[in-house]
Amino acid sequence: MQHGDIRALTFDVFGTTVDWRGTIIREGERLGAAKGIQVDWTAVADRWARKYAEARNRQGPWLPLDQILRRAGGEVLEEFRIKGLTPAEHESWSGLWSRLDPWPDTLPGLERLRSRYLLACLSNANTALSIALARHANLPWDQVLGPETVRAYKPSPRVYCMALRRLGLEGEEVMMVAAHLFDLEGAKALGFRTAFVRRAGEDAGDPTKAPYVDLIAEDLQDLARQLSR
Amino acid sequence: MQHGDIRALTFDVFGTTVDWRGTIIREGERLGAAKGIQVDWTAVADRWARKYAEARNRQGPWLPLDQILRRAGGEVLEEFRIKGLTPAEHESWSGLWSRLDPWPDTLPGLERLRSRYLLACLSNANTALSIALARHANLPWDQVLGPETVRAYKPSPRVYCMALRRLGLEGEEVMMVAAHLFDLEGAKALGFRTAFVRRAGEDAGDPTKAPYVDLIAEDLQDLARQLSR
Repeated sequence: MQHGDIRALTFDVFGTTVDWRGTIIREGERLGAAKGIQVDWTAVADRWARKYAEARNRQGPWLPLDQILRRAGGEVLEEFRIKGLTPAEHESWSGLWSRLDPWPDTLPGLERLRSRYLLACLSNANTALSIALARHANLPWDQVLGPETVRAYKPSPRVYCMALRRLGLEGEEVMMVAAHLFDLEGAKALGFRTAFVRRAGEDAGDPTKAPYVDLIAEDLQDLARQLSR
Repeated sequence: MQHGDIRALTFDVFGTTVDWRGTIIREGERLGAAKGIQVDWTAVADRWARKYAEARNRQGPWLPLDQILRRAGGEVLEEFRIKGLTPAEHESWSGLWSRLDPWPDTLPGLERLRSRYLLACLSNANTALSIALARHANLPWDQVLGPETVRAYKPSPRVYCMALRRLGLEGEEVMMVAAHLFDLEGAKALGFRTAFVRRAGEDAGDPTKAPYVDLIAEDLQDLARQLSR
């Protein structure tokens, strides 16, 4: 693959640039210690993410992701019988997806990539949620491409098409970076270059067997190294 | 006015945060010296801006602003009989609006404001042009709100409404910052707070007489000072 034509990188966020599972577990353990709650916080985190995926895939009126995540956050508390939270604690928990922590390599990797490429956030999160998360985690996006104008979620081709229109670029000028194969397959269908990032606990598939994966990186610093060759 | 409810500032760019006239004059003089061209570069700059305003206001199919500016850039060369440019010089000139310089107070003012508010670019420039300009001038936008999704230009209410939807905020939570009264009048109609910034050579009107102006600032550092009170 020629890297010279790439002008912009579009990034998946949850799992790819921020560690949603680790952050939820840490926040849960902190909450549990304060309130004397014993629960498997990894199971809570995974259930929360699964509920979000289910809601996202469900037919029906399109909802912005922050609403879906907020509602699902309350539901997991009930399912795991986590009780006794103050209204402030409940509110803080429900909004946790706007305060996820980046992976250790994310900020140095993005800074290095930004010197050469336009960096855009292309998450399923609505713009407001992505901006809040970017401010929390210092993610240096040149642009946030929220899916609410097309009222669809990745891997709908409408989302990738919106990104190209908004950036004013052709597919081969943009590389989609994600830790999930379905996202890269969706992007490739619009002509994007694709980079798979290995993240523990994210996609269990084999990227070496996926014909739509152009590049495999161990993390974002490794991606910057590979693209600078 | 209570400043405490404001969560985001939306900024006009041409004239408000970057000095389009000064940049064009400097670039023109540099070009003139290299090619032995004598011309009134201030008149060239103002003609270029006027052509952009005319094209923007003309009825007909909506065009992204970078196309309008690029075409107008070639037309002003012809009108002022500026000849003998190489293709590279012509290309560099046509793309000049993506390389405008910020006013001296812009970066320190924006950095100070960013510690407290979400900062969004709300220019008539399409997203791709605004991103290129932000990268050139180091403008620290949290988000670029390009008008191409609504295919309209400020002061169309569609543009301000798009900004509120995309930010997930109400009008009274957002302050429009501009050096042009028409822009603030348009924003106020959607409920925005408004701040007029005095910029030499921009709006000749009297902001103290405009009922839709909430705040008048000498520059962006002054705006940061006034909003921190």
